[in-house]
Amino acid sequence: MADKVRSAVVLVSGGLDSATTLAVARHQGLVCHALTVRYGQRHAAELEAARRVARSLGAVRHVEVAVDLRAIGGSALTADIDVPKDRPHEAIAEGIPVTYVPARNTVFLSLALAYAEAHEMFDIFLGVNALDYSGYPDCRPEFIHQFERLAQVATKAGVEGRGTFRVHTPLIAMTKREIILEGTRLGVDFGWTHSCYDPLPDGTACGRCDSCRLRLKGFAEAGLIDPIRYAIQT
Amino acid sequence: MADKVRSAVVLVSGGLDSATTLAVARHQGLVCHALTVRYGQRHAAELEAARRVARSLGAVRHVEVAVDLRAIGGSALTADIDVPKDRPHEAIAEGIPVTYVPARNTVFLSLALAYAEAHEMFDIFLGVNALDYSGYPDCRPEFIHQFERLAQVATKAGVEGRGTFRVHTPLIAMTKREIILEGTRLGVDFGWTHSCYDPLPDGTACGRCDSCRLRLKGFAEAGLIDPIRYAIQT
Repeated sequence: MADKVRSAVVLVSGGLDSATTLAVARHQGLVCHALTVRYGQRHAAELEAARRVARSLGAVRHVEVAVDLRAIGGSALTADIDVPKDRPHEAIAEGIPVTYVPARNTVFLSLALAYAEAHEMFDIFLGVNALDYSGYPDCRPEFIHQFERLAQVATKAGVEGRGTFRVHTPLIAMTKREIILEGTRLGVDFGWTHSCYDPLPDGTACGRCDSCRLRLKGFAEAGLIDPIRYAIQT
Repeated sequence: MADKVRSAVVLVSGGLDSATTLAVARHQGLVCHALTVRYGQRHAAELEAARRVARSLGAVRHVEVAVDLRAIGGSALTADIDVPKDRPHEAIAEGIPVTYVPARNTVFLSLALAYAEAHEMFDIFLGVNALDYSGYPDCRPEFIHQFERLAQVATKAGVEGRGTFRVHTPLIAMTKREIILEGTRLGVDFGWTHSCYDPLPDGTACGRCDSCRLRLKGFAEAGLIDPIRYAIQT
Protein backbone atom coordinates (compact mmCIF):
# COMPACT_ATOMS: atom_id res chain seq x y z
CA MET A 1 0.00 0.00 0.00
CA ALA A 2 2.87 2.38 0.79
CA ASP A 3 4.08 2.32 -2.82
CA LYS A 4 0.66 2.79 -4.32
CA VAL A 5 0.24 6.02 -6.25
CA ARG A 6 -2.46 8.09 -4.59
CA SER A 7 -5.54 8.84 -6.64
CA ALA A 8 -8.01 11.66 -6.18
CA VAL A 9 -11.31 12.77 -7.59
CA VAL A 10 -11.32 16.41 -8.67
CA LEU A 11 -14.56 18.29 -9.29
CA VAL A 12 -14.08 20.10 -12.59
CA SER A 13 -16.68 22.61 -13.73
CA GLY A 14 -14.76 24.12 -16.61
CA GLY A 15 -14.18 27.36 -14.71
CA LEU A 16 -10.96 29.07 -13.75
CA ASP A 17 -11.01 27.88 -10.13
CA SER A 18 -11.52 24.17 -10.79
CA ALA A 19 -8.88 24.22 -13.56
CA THR A 20 -6.35 25.63 -11.10
CA THR A 21 -7.46 23.07 -8.50
CA LEU A 22 -6.85 20.21 -10.94
CA ALA A 23 -3.41 21.67 -11.73
CA VAL A 24 -2.60 21.80 -7.99
CA ALA A 25 -3.66 18.17 -7.48
CA ARG A 26 -1.59 17.04 -10.50
CA HIS A 27 1.39 19.06 -9.21
CA GLN A 28 1.13 17.11 -5.93
CA GLY A 29 1.68 13.93 -7.95
CA LEU A 30 -1.85 12.60 -7.67
CA VAL A 31 -3.52 10.47 -10.31
CA CYS A 32 -6.63 12.55 -10.99
CA HIS A 33 -10.12 11.50 -11.99
CA ALA A 34 -12.03 14.57 -13.13
CA LEU A 35 -15.72 14.59 -12.22
CA THR A 36 -18.08 17.03 -13.89
CA VAL A 37 -21.63 17.35 -12.63
CA ARG A 38 -24.11 18.27 -15.38
CA TYR A 39 -26.84 19.94 -13.41
CA GLY A 40 -29.10 21.46 -16.02
CA GLN A 41 -26.97 24.45 -16.84
CA ARG A 42 -28.50 26.77 -19.35
CA HIS A 43 -25.55 26.46 -21.73
CA ALA A 44 -23.12 23.84 -22.97
CA ALA A 45 -20.00 26.03 -23.07
CA GLU A 46 -19.16 25.09 -19.48
CA LEU A 47 -19.22 21.35 -20.26
CA GLU A 48 -16.96 21.78 -23.30
CA ALA A 49 -14.60 23.78 -21.13
CA ALA A 50 -14.61 21.01 -18.49
CA ARG A 51 -13.62 18.45 -21.14
CA ARG A 52 -10.80 20.66 -22.44
CA VAL A 53 -9.52 21.31 -18.91
CA ALA A 54 -9.60 17.62 -17.88
CA ARG A 55 -7.80 16.51 -21.04
CA SER A 56 -5.24 19.30 -21.12
CA LEU A 57 -4.25 18.95 -17.48
CA GLY A 58 -3.74 15.20 -17.65
CA ALA A 59 -6.71 13.70 -15.80
CA VAL A 60 -6.62 9.92 -16.37
CA ARG A 61 -10.40 9.82 -16.61
CA HIS A 62 -13.19 12.32 -17.08
CA VAL A 63 -16.62 11.31 -15.79
CA GLU A 64 -19.78 13.31 -16.30
CA VAL A 65 -22.67 12.71 -13.93
CA ALA A 66 -26.01 14.20 -14.86
CA VAL A 67 -28.31 15.43 -12.10
CA ASP A 68 -31.35 17.43 -12.99
CA LEU A 69 -31.32 20.26 -10.45
CA ARG A 70 -33.89 22.11 -12.60
CA ALA A 71 -36.49 19.77 -11.08
CA ILE A 72 -35.51 21.30 -7.75
CA GLY A 73 -35.44 24.96 -8.83
CA GLY A 74 -34.56 27.97 -6.75
CA SER A 75 -31.61 29.61 -8.53
CA ALA A 76 -30.84 31.95 -11.41
CA LEU A 77 -28.45 29.27 -12.72
CA THR A 78 -31.10 26.55 -13.00
CA ALA A 79 -34.46 28.34 -13.05
CA ASP A 80 -36.04 31.26 -14.81
CA ILE A 81 -34.52 34.08 -12.77
CA ASP A 82 -32.47 36.84 -14.44
CA VAL A 83 -28.72 36.80 -13.94
CA PRO A 84 -27.76 40.23 -12.52
CA LYS A 85 -25.49 42.41 -14.69
CA ASP A 86 -23.09 45.32 -14.19
CA ARG A 87 -23.17 45.17 -10.40
CA PRO A 88 -20.42 47.10 -8.62
CA HIS A 89 -17.78 44.91 -6.96
CA GLU A 90 -18.96 45.95 -3.51
CA ALA A 91 -22.45 44.59 -4.30
CA ILE A 92 -20.99 41.32 -5.62
CA ALA A 93 -19.10 40.78 -2.37
CA GLU A 94 -22.16 41.36 -0.20
CA GLY A 95 -24.85 38.86 0.76
CA ILE A 96 -25.84 35.66 -1.02
CA PRO A 97 -26.43 36.18 -4.76
CA VAL A 98 -29.44 34.87 -6.76
CA THR A 99 -27.00 32.65 -8.64
CA TYR A 100 -26.65 30.60 -5.43
CA VAL A 101 -27.83 27.06 -6.20
CA PRO A 102 -29.43 25.55 -3.08
CA ALA A 103 -27.09 23.05 -1.46
CA ARG A 104 -25.04 22.78 -4.64
CA ASN A 105 -21.70 21.90 -3.10
CA THR A 106 -23.42 19.38 -0.81
CA VAL A 107 -24.82 17.65 -3.90
CA PHE A 108 -21.49 17.90 -5.76
CA LEU A 109 -19.45 16.57 -2.84
CA SER A 110 -21.90 13.72 -2.22
CA LEU A 111 -21.48 12.62 -5.86
CA ALA A 112 -17.70 12.95 -5.55
CA LEU A 113 -17.86 10.90 -2.36
CA ALA A 114 -19.89 8.18 -4.12
CA TYR A 115 -17.31 8.11 -6.92
CA ALA A 116 -14.40 8.10 -4.47
CA GLU A 117 -15.86 5.23 -2.48
CA ALA A 118 -16.72 3.20 -5.59
CA HIS A 119 -13.10 3.52 -6.74
CA GLU A 120 -11.36 3.22 -3.37
CA MET A 121 -10.12 6.80 -3.14
CA PHE A 122 -10.17 9.05 -0.10
CA ASP A 123 -9.11 12.39 -1.56
CA ILE A 124 -11.55 14.85 -3.09
CA PHE A 125 -10.51 18.22 -4.52
CA LEU A 126 -12.94 21.11 -4.76
CA GLY A 127 -12.12 24.57 -6.12
CA VAL A 128 -14.14 26.64 -3.67
CA ASN A 129 -12.98 30.05 -2.67
CA ALA A 130 -14.20 31.80 0.46
CA LEU A 131 -12.89 35.30 -0.30
CA ASP A 132 -14.37 36.30 -3.62
CA TYR A 133 -17.70 34.66 -2.79
CA SER A 134 -18.15 35.32 0.88
CA GLY A 135 -21.87 34.97 0.23
CA TYR A 136 -21.97 31.24 -0.50
CA PRO A 137 -22.40 29.23 2.72
CA ASP A 138 -21.06 26.06 1.09
CA CYS A 139 -17.72 27.66 0.20
CA ARG A 140 -16.63 28.07 3.83
CA PRO A 141 -14.10 25.94 5.75
CA GLU A 142 -16.77 25.12 8.35
CA PHE A 143 -18.89 23.47 5.66
CA ILE A 144 -15.93 21.56 4.23
CA HIS A 145 -14.90 20.19 7.64
CA GLN A 146 -18.44 19.13 8.41
CA PHE A 147 -18.61 17.29 5.08
CA GLU A 148 -15.38 15.42 5.91
CA ARG A 149 -16.92 14.27 9.19
CA LEU A 150 -20.06 13.17 7.35
CA ALA A 151 -18.07 11.26 4.70
CA GLN A 152 -16.38 9.18 7.37
CA VAL A 153 -19.65 7.91 8.88
CA ALA A 154 -21.58 7.77 5.58
CA THR A 155 -19.47 5.18 3.83
CA LYS A 156 -18.51 1.54 4.07
CA ALA A 157 -14.86 2.53 3.49
CA GLY A 158 -15.02 5.10 6.30
CA VAL A 159 -16.85 2.90 8.81
CA GLU A 160 -14.55 -0.03 8.13
CA GLY A 161 -11.56 2.26 8.76
CA ARG A 162 -9.89 1.71 5.39
CA GLY A 163 -8.93 5.38 5.19
CA THR A 164 -9.77 8.96 6.07
CA PHE A 165 -11.75 11.05 3.62
CA ARG A 166 -10.26 14.46 2.95
CA VAL A 167 -11.82 17.33 1.02
CA HIS A 168 -8.96 19.46 -0.29
CA THR A 169 -9.69 23.08 -1.07
CA PRO A 170 -6.35 24.55 -2.11
CA LEU A 171 -7.91 27.85 -3.25
CA ILE A 172 -10.12 28.50 -0.25
CA ALA A 173 -8.09 31.43 1.11
CA MET A 174 -6.83 32.83 -2.21
CA THR A 175 -8.00 35.94 -4.01
CA LYS A 176 -8.94 35.66 -7.69
CA ARG A 177 -5.63 37.37 -8.49
CA GLU A 178 -3.68 34.72 -6.55
CA ILE A 179 -5.63 31.87 -8.19
CA ILE A 180 -4.80 33.24 -11.65
CA LEU A 181 -1.12 33.61 -10.78
CA GLU A 182 -0.96 30.10 -9.27
CA GLY A 183 -2.78 28.53 -12.23
CA THR A 184 -0.45 30.31 -14.67
CA ARG A 185 2.60 29.11 -12.72
CA LEU A 186 1.30 25.51 -12.92
CA GLY A 187 0.71 25.66 -16.67
CA VAL A 188 -3.02 26.29 -16.89
CA ASP A 189 -4.06 28.01 -20.11
CA PHE A 190 -7.11 29.97 -19.01
CA GLY A 191 -8.21 30.10 -22.62
CA TRP A 192 -9.58 26.56 -21.97
CA THR A 193 -11.85 27.77 -19.21
CA HIS A 194 -15.30 29.30 -19.08
CA SER A 195 -16.79 31.37 -16.26
CA CYS A 196 -19.73 33.37 -17.63
CA TYR A 197 -23.21 32.87 -16.13
CA ASP A 198 -24.96 34.14 -19.25
CA PRO A 199 -22.90 33.62 -22.42
CA LEU A 200 -23.97 34.43 -26.01
CA PRO A 201 -25.24 31.47 -28.07
CA ASP A 202 -21.72 30.98 -29.53
CA GLY A 203 -20.23 30.73 -26.01
CA THR A 204 -18.73 34.23 -25.88
CA ALA A 205 -18.67 35.53 -22.29
CA CYS A 206 -21.02 38.42 -21.55
CA GLY A 207 -18.47 40.46 -19.58
CA ARG A 208 -21.22 41.85 -17.34
CA CYS A 209 -22.37 39.12 -14.93
CA ASP A 210 -20.80 38.80 -11.47
CA SER A 211 -18.64 35.89 -12.60
CA CYS A 212 -17.22 37.76 -15.62
CA ARG A 213 -16.62 40.88 -13.54
CA LEU A 214 -14.74 38.96 -10.81
CA ARG A 215 -12.68 37.17 -13.42
CA LEU A 216 -11.75 40.35 -15.30
CA LYS A 217 -10.88 42.12 -12.06
CA GLY A 218 -8.66 39.15 -11.09
CA PHE A 219 -6.76 39.26 -14.39
CA ALA A 220 -6.35 43.04 -14.13
CA GLU A 221 -4.96 42.73 -10.62
CA ALA A 222 -2.63 39.91 -11.70
CA GLY A 223 -1.33 42.12 -14.53
CA LEU A 224 -2.31 39.48 -17.09
CA ILE A 225 -4.54 39.44 -20.15
CA ASP A 226 -7.59 37.12 -20.00
CA PRO A 227 -7.29 35.00 -23.16
CA ILE A 228 -11.04 34.38 -23.59
CA ARG A 229 -13.34 36.57 -25.70
CA TYR A 230 -15.91 38.88 -24.18
CA ALA A 231 -18.96 40.52 -25.77
CA ILE A 232 -18.28 43.65 -23.73
CA GLN A 233 -16.01 44.59 -20.83
CA THR A 234 -17.44 47.11 -18.38
CA MET B 1 -45.59 32.05 11.18
CA ALA B 2 -47.18 30.18 14.11
CA ASP B 3 -50.29 29.43 12.09
CA LYS B 4 -48.43 28.34 9.01
CA VAL B 5 -48.95 24.69 8.11
CA ARG B 6 -45.60 22.92 8.23
CA SER B 7 -44.36 21.36 5.03
CA ALA B 8 -41.88 18.56 4.61
CA VAL B 9 -40.02 16.80 1.86
CA VAL B 10 -40.33 13.01 2.03
CA LEU B 11 -37.98 10.74 0.09
CA VAL B 12 -40.21 8.15 -1.58
CA SER B 13 -38.61 5.20 -3.34
CA GLY B 14 -41.75 3.16 -3.90
CA GLY B 15 -40.75 0.62 -1.26
CA LEU B 16 -42.54 -0.46 1.88
CA ASP B 17 -40.40 1.66 4.23
CA SER B 18 -40.75 4.98 2.42
CA ALA B 19 -44.51 4.45 1.98
CA THR B 20 -44.87 3.99 5.75
CA THR B 21 -42.65 7.04 6.31
CA LEU B 22 -44.88 9.18 4.10
CA ALA B 23 -47.94 7.90 6.01
CA VAL B 24 -46.29 8.87 9.32
CA ALA B 25 -45.48 12.39 8.06
CA ARG B 26 -49.04 12.84 6.77
CA HIS B 27 -50.42 11.55 10.09
CA GLN B 28 -48.39 14.28 11.86
CA GLY B 29 -50.36 16.83 9.82
CA LEU B 30 -47.52 17.83 7.52
CA VAL B 31 -48.02 19.00 3.95
CA CYS B 32 -45.81 16.53 2.12
CA HIS B 33 -43.78 16.93 -1.04
CA ALA B 34 -42.67 13.50 -2.23
CA LEU B 35 -39.21 13.37 -3.80
CA THR B 36 -38.13 10.36 -5.83
CA VAL B 37 -34.57 10.07 -6.97
CA ARG B 38 -34.21 8.22 -10.28
CA TYR B 39 -30.70 6.89 -10.04
CA GLY B 40 -30.36 4.53 -12.95
CA GLN B 41 -32.27 1.64 -11.45
CA ARG B 42 -32.36 -1.42 -13.62
CA HIS B 43 -36.16 -1.51 -13.66
CA ALA B 44 -39.08 0.90 -13.81
CA ALA B 45 -41.40 -0.93 -11.38
CA GLU B 46 -39.96 1.04 -8.47
CA LEU B 47 -40.75 4.39 -10.11
CA GLU B 48 -44.33 3.38 -10.87
CA ALA B 49 -44.69 2.28 -7.25
CA ALA B 50 -43.32 5.64 -6.05
CA ARG B 51 -45.94 7.47 -8.11
CA ARG B 52 -48.76 5.28 -6.76
CA VAL B 53 -47.55 5.73 -3.17
CA ALA B 54 -47.20 9.54 -3.45
CA ARG B 55 -50.64 9.91 -5.01
CA SER B 56 -52.45 7.46 -2.75
CA LEU B 57 -51.05 8.86 0.48
CA GLY B 58 -51.89 12.48 -0.33
CA ALA B 59 -48.56 14.11 -1.19
CA VAL B 60 -49.33 17.60 -2.59
CA ARG B 61 -46.53 17.26 -5.09
CA HIS B 62 -44.38 14.47 -6.48
CA VAL B 63 -41.01 15.47 -7.89
CA GLU B 64 -38.62 13.12 -9.66
CA VAL B 65 -34.97 14.07 -9.83
CA ALA B 66 -32.76 12.08 -12.16
CA VAL B 67 -29.16 11.43 -11.18
CA ASP B 68 -27.12 8.98 -13.15
CA LEU B 69 -25.33 6.95 -10.50
CA ARG B 70 -24.45 4.36 -13.16
CA ALA B 71 -21.70 6.77 -14.24
CA ILE B 72 -20.29 6.30 -10.75
CA GLY B 73 -20.66 2.52 -10.51
CA GLY B 74 -19.79 0.26 -7.62
CA SER B 75 -23.05 -1.50 -6.70
CA ALA B 76 -25.20 -4.44 -7.74
CA LEU B 77 -28.12 -2.00 -7.96
CA THR B 78 -26.47 0.26 -10.54
CA ALA B 79 -23.69 -1.78 -12.13
CA ASP B 80 -23.23 -5.21 -13.61
CA ILE B 81 -22.92 -7.20 -10.40
CA ASP B 82 -25.28 -10.11 -9.63
CA VAL B 83 -27.95 -9.60 -6.98
CA PRO B 84 -27.51 -12.40 -4.40
CA LYS B 85 -30.40 -14.86 -4.05
CA ASP B 86 -31.71 -17.27 -1.42
CA ARG B 87 -29.37 -16.11 1.30
CA PRO B 88 -30.25 -17.22 4.84
CA HIS B 89 -31.55 -14.43 7.10
CA GLU B 90 -28.41 -14.59 9.23
CA ALA B 91 -26.27 -13.84 6.15
CA ILE B 92 -28.54 -10.92 5.16
CA ALA B 93 -28.11 -9.36 8.59
CA GLU B 94 -24.32 -9.59 8.48
CA GLY B 95 -21.86 -7.21 6.86
CA ILE B 96 -22.46 -4.71 4.06
CA PRO B 97 -24.22 -6.27 1.06
CA VAL B 98 -23.19 -5.88 -2.61
CA THR B 99 -26.46 -4.01 -3.14
CA TYR B 100 -24.98 -1.15 -1.09
CA VAL B 101 -24.86 1.92 -3.36
CA PRO B 102 -21.82 4.05 -2.41
CA ALA B 103 -22.90 7.12 -0.45
CA ARG B 104 -26.51 6.70 -1.65
CA ASN B 105 -28.25 8.28 1.31
CA THR B 106 -25.74 11.15 1.29
CA VAL B 107 -26.69 11.82 -2.34
CA PHE B 108 -30.43 11.41 -1.62
CA LEU B 109 -30.38 13.67 1.44
CA SER B 110 -28.35 16.33 -0.36
CA LEU B 111 -30.99 16.44 -3.11
CA ALA B 112 -33.76 16.56 -0.50
CA LEU B 113 -31.87 19.38 1.23
CA ALA B 114 -31.59 21.32 -2.04
CA TYR B 115 -35.34 20.87 -2.57
CA ALA B 116 -36.14 21.82 1.03
CA GLU B 117 -34.05 24.96 0.84
CA ALA B 118 -35.45 26.00 -2.56
CA HIS B 119 -38.98 25.71 -1.11
CA GLU B 120 -38.31 27.07 2.39
CA MET B 121 -38.81 23.83 4.27
CA PHE B 122 -36.71 22.49 7.12
CA ASP B 123 -38.11 18.99 7.59
CA ILE B 124 -36.90 16.00 5.62
CA PHE B 125 -38.27 12.47 6.11
CA LEU B 126 -36.23 9.42 5.21
CA GLY B 127 -37.37 5.82 5.63
CA VAL B 128 -34.10 4.31 6.78
CA ASN B 129 -34.08 1.44 9.15
CA ALA B 130 -31.05 0.47 11.21
CA LEU B 131 -32.21 -2.96 12.40
CA ASP B 132 -32.99 -4.95 9.29
CA TYR B 133 -30.03 -3.46 7.43
CA SER B 134 -27.37 -3.15 10.07
CA GLY B 135 -24.89 -3.35 7.20
CA TYR B 136 -25.60 0.01 5.58
CA PRO B 137 -23.47 2.76 7.18
CA ASP B 138 -25.80 5.48 5.93
CA CYS B 139 -28.83 4.05 7.74
CA ARG B 140 -27.44 4.72 11.22
CA PRO B 141 -28.45 7.52 13.62
CA GLU B 142 -24.84 8.76 13.70
CA PHE B 143 -24.96 9.41 9.95
CA ILE B 144 -28.35 11.14 10.21
CA HIS B 145 -27.14 13.46 12.98
CA GLN B 146 -23.99 14.38 11.05
CA PHE B 147 -26.14 15.20 8.03
CA GLU B 148 -28.36 17.51 10.11
CA ARG B 149 -25.26 19.37 11.28
CA LEU B 150 -24.02 19.62 7.70
CA ALA B 151 -27.38 20.94 6.45
CA GLN B 152 -27.25 23.79 8.91
CA VAL B 153 -23.86 25.08 7.72
CA ALA B 154 -24.37 24.17 4.03
CA THR B 155 -27.36 26.38 3.32
CA LYS B 156 -28.31 30.02 3.12
CA ALA B 157 -31.43 29.27 5.19
CA GLY B 158 -29.36 27.54 7.87
CA VAL B 159 -26.59 30.14 8.02
CA GLU B 160 -29.10 32.99 8.13
CA GLY B 161 -30.84 31.24 11.04
CA ARG B 162 -34.26 31.03 9.41
CA GLY B 163 -34.80 27.56 10.83
CA THR B 164 -33.25 24.28 11.93
CA PHE B 165 -33.00 21.43 9.47
CA ARG B 166 -34.26 18.12 10.80
CA VAL B 167 -33.95 14.71 9.19
CA HIS B 168 -36.79 12.58 10.55
CA THR B 169 -36.34 8.82 10.47
CA PRO B 170 -39.48 7.45 12.14
CA LEU B 171 -38.64 3.84 11.23
CA ILE B 172 -35.02 3.81 12.29
CA ALA B 173 -35.51 1.57 15.34
CA MET B 174 -38.39 -0.55 14.02
CA THR B 175 -38.28 -4.13 12.81
CA LYS B 176 -39.80 -4.93 9.43
CA ARG B 177 -42.74 -6.47 11.31
CA GLU B 178 -43.34 -3.22 13.22
CA ILE B 179 -43.08 -1.13 10.04
CA ILE B 180 -45.70 -3.29 8.34
CA LEU B 181 -48.04 -3.07 11.35
CA GLU B 182 -47.56 0.73 11.61
CA GLY B 183 -48.10 1.25 7.87
CA THR B 184 -51.24 -0.90 7.96
CA ARG B 185 -52.56 1.08 10.95
CA LEU B 186 -52.01 4.34 9.02
CA GLY B 187 -53.81 3.14 5.90
CA VAL B 188 -50.95 2.11 3.64
CA ASP B 189 -51.94 -0.49 1.07
CA PHE B 190 -48.67 -2.36 0.57
CA GLY B 191 -50.00 -3.57 -2.76
CA TRP B 192 -48.86 -0.13 -4.06
CA THR B 193 -45.28 -0.76 -3.07
CA HIS B 194 -42.34 -2.51 -4.67
CA SER B 195 -39.26 -3.88 -2.90
CA CYS B 196 -37.60 -6.45 -5.18
CA TYR B 197 -33.99 -5.89 -6.30
CA ASP B 198 -34.40 -8.11 -9.35
CA PRO B 199 -38.01 -8.30 -10.60
CA LEU B 200 -39.27 -10.15 -13.69
CA PRO B 201 -39.80 -8.00 -16.82
CA ASP B 202 -43.50 -7.58 -15.90
CA GLY B 203 -42.57 -6.23 -12.45
CA THR B 204 -43.34 -9.41 -10.47
CA ALA B 205 -41.07 -9.67 -7.41
CA CYS B 206 -38.47 -12.47 -7.52
CA GLY B 207 -39.09 -13.63 -3.93
CA ARG B 208 -35.46 -14.64 -3.57
CA CYS B 209 -33.33 -11.49 -3.23
CA ASP B 210 -32.49 -10.09 0.23
CA SER B 211 -35.14 -7.40 -0.07
CA CYS B 212 -37.94 -9.86 -0.96
CA ARG B 213 -36.86 -12.24 1.80
CA LEU B 214 -36.84 -9.51 4.46
CA ARG B 215 -40.22 -8.29 3.28
CA LEU B 216 -41.81 -11.75 3.32
CA LYS B 217 -40.34 -12.48 6.75
CA GLY B 218 -41.79 -9.17 8.02
CA PHE B 219 -45.27 -9.99 6.74
CA ALA B 220 -45.10 -13.50 8.20
CA GLU B 221 -44.07 -12.12 11.62
CA ALA B 222 -46.82 -9.49 11.44
CA GLY B 223 -49.35 -12.24 10.73
CA LEU B 224 -50.41 -10.52 7.50
CA ILE B 225 -50.50 -11.50 3.85
CA ASP B 226 -48.23 -9.54 1.49
CA PRO B 227 -50.60 -8.34 -1.26
CA ILE B 228 -47.98 -8.23 -4.04
CA ARG B 229 -47.24 -11.08 -6.44
CA TYR B 230 -44.08 -13.15 -6.24
CA ALA B 231 -42.51 -15.42 -8.83
CA ILE B 232 -41.51 -17.81 -6.04
CA GLN B 233 -41.45 -17.71 -2.25
CA THR B 234 -38.60 -19.58 -0.61
